[in-house]
Amino acid sequence: MVIVVPCMNETRSVIEGVLSGIPHDCLIVLVSNSDKLPVDRYEIEAQTLEQFCRLAGRSAIAVHQKDPGLAAAFKAAGMEDLIGEDGLVRNGKGEAMLIGMAVAAMTGRRYLGYVDADNYVPGAVHEYCKAYAAGLHLADSPYSMVRISWHSKPKLRDGRLFFSRKGRSSQITNEWLNRFLAEYSGFGTEVIATGNAGEHAMSLALGLKLRLAGGFAVEPYEYMDMFEQFGGILESTDPDVMAGSVPVLQIETRNPHFHDNKGEEHVQGMRMQALNVVYHSPVTLPSVRQAIVDFMVSQGALELGQEPPRERVYPPVGSLDLELLYDGLDAEAQTFRQFDGGASAGLPPSPPIARESIPRTTV
Amino acid sequence: MVIVVPCMNETRSVIEGVLSGIPHDCLIVLVSNSDKLPVDRYEIEAQTLEQFCRLAGRSAIAVHQKDPGLAAAFKAAGMEDLIGEDGLVRNGKGEAMLIGMAVAAMTGRRYLGYVDADNYVPGAVHEYCKAYAAGLHLADSPYSMVRISWHSKPKLRDGRLFFSRKGRSSQITNEWLNRFLAEYSGFGTEVIATGNAGEHAMSLALGLKLRLAGGFAVEPYEYMDMFEQFGGILESTDPDVMAGSVPVLQIETRNPHFHDNKGEEHVQGMRMQALNVVYHSPVTLPSVRQAIVDFMVSQGALELGQEPPRERVYPPVGSLDLELLYDGLDAEAQTFRQFDGGASAGLPPSPPIARESIPRTTV
Repeated sequence: MVIVVPCMNETRSVIEGVLSGIPHDCLIVLVSNSDKLPVDRYEIEAQTLEQFCRLAGRSAIAVHQKDPGLAAAFKAAGMEDLIGEDGLVRNGKGEAMLIGMAVAAMTGRRYLGYVDADNYVPGAVHEYCKAYAAGLHLADSPYSMVRISWHSKPKLRDGRLFFSRKGRSSQITNEWLNRFLAEYSGFGTEVIATGNAGEHAMSLALGLKLRLAGGFAVEPYEYMDMFEQFGGILESTDPDVMAGSVPVLQIETRNPHFHDNKGEEHVQGMRMQALNVVYHSPVTLPSVRQAIVDFMVSQGALELGQEPPRERVYPPVGSLDLELLYDGLDAEAQTFRQFDGGASAGLPPSPPIARESIPRTTV
Repeated sequence: MVIVVPCMNETRSVIEGVLSGIPHDCLIVLVSNSDKLPVDRYEIEAQTLEQFCRLAGRSAIAVHQKDPGLAAAFKAAGMEDLIGEDGLVRNGKGEAMLIGMAVAAMTGRRYLGYVDADNYVPGAVHEYCKAYAAGLHLADSPYSMVRISWHSKPKLRDGRLFFSRKGRSSQITNEWLNRFLAEYSGFGTEVIATGNAGEHAMSLALGLKLRLAGGFAVEPYEYMDMFEQFGGILESTDPDVMAGSVPVLQIETRNPHFHDNKGEEHVQGMRMQALNVVYHSPVTLPSVRQAIVDFMVSQGALELGQEPPRERVYPPVGSLDLELLYDGLDAEAQTFRQFDGGASAGLPPSPPIARESIPRTTV
């Protein structure tokens, strides 16, 4: 499995903790969008990763989201949409996850998991990865996904810790995803508990077919895209995938999810991006769309009479020419680094990506 | 390995978390000194443990420290010192650990680890157990110990979390244990980082020879007893154990140690109990003893001209007749429970302790 760690301005000690929680045989891919000024944080991160790999005999890949060489490589490989007006890859978590997925695909590994870099508990990261492996094994399907529902989120309240069972953003996202479903079935449901799950994993066979959304819309949009592509709601366009054939396992962890508090603005942004993707999905029923608009207006997030904004949605990573992507990265991306865990142990060189074994994608 | 969990009034959800962090093949021994009133907390704990064992196919043993049958069994087995004036086993963490060690010895397993029940992070518990196993393997000696030095302890400070590297009590305990050593060598040292380590493990071969102290003196006293018995400082009384032949591995974890805050009084008590055992050890040099008295007086913990109190020290668990102990528990201890993980899976009965395979101790 490849574990992709999207990272933005986390401290060195927190990143070290996250790295140390990732099981030994997983390949680490760090996709950073950290600040370059006043200090080049990416250089610190890459150094941290290099040291970790050397000491623990691990392999990893790192790249910075705003590397001009990365943008050029994605352009060459066929994903111009990812490039913003400044000629660089756009900011956003979804964009970082897309980069990570493309890198993961080049390695030829079969599974991909995401772990956020702002986790204070290495043991929780470890549990996420094991839950991914267990869930993907149990799913027993070439197309499968595991999403983590964390046990609790510790919050400071009146000078003591309170282990909250609900996230401020997840609560809203899950409610609307469930309403989306309930409107089809006529039964109220709480089946979706992981609409905003940053921690999730999938088979790359599935990942390469998914269309990822930009920013924080990425996680809830995965659900919408699966409903659209594989839910049997629209006519399936993919002969490989039978309607309803993508098991999504939601696994609750034992560890609390103990991470940096990003503040209220961040949370409100995440909520609204989730609602935007539900609103604009062609499979969302009109009554739900109307209810979303009413809710957003009541929240002050939308002017009366306006339509929710559309989130950016990218073509599947499987549409990329991975060999061109690799050649571009190798030749032009200065921040693109491969760390070879075997090398420090005196083994023959074995970089995580071998040019000659890059899979040809078929989407 | 047997993992002993001393427990006192922790909530059900915290205990469940700790249990879930203990690796599958470890046998769990819960030694509770929880309140019986207004509700019988031990019954809740035993139920929690029973459910966990049934669902996860695990084996465990539980007993309550104040069970009259437990006291009778220890008396019959040859440890009258453990019994207080009320005819029951004395209160105290060291006493709980001694009970756990005796139960562990009856199972015939080779290794024993301790994990406190007040840990909020199951992943940390998991890491402790793995560090025990790794350390005991690396020690490669029949007599060996692993002590955990936690990475950091999260504390609330100004409404945010601060990951402190030093414990309020450990700081003092370690300082004086190191001073004890430095006085012999003439070199200042910081070699001891785990004087108060609640999380530690050892081979039962070592454990059965150790004299455990009562209360919170238990952890620092393990060091003193090893110096006394195996340090080559006094003449070794045990032909089996060569001077200096007990490797003690101190392992720093990646996870923060995130537990209940027991308050300042508890901490001050722990500190002073540690100083008491260093003071009274026959191997402590006079200059260190004098410095301890001066320090305790300056802390208001001792009147000028008084001597630090003596902590209670018990005979080695290896001096017990384990068969008599088992028979006593089996016949008289109402709280003594064995949970057989195989039974729920339809396997033939295999309780954790088999009467016919209880080892004969030789200390």
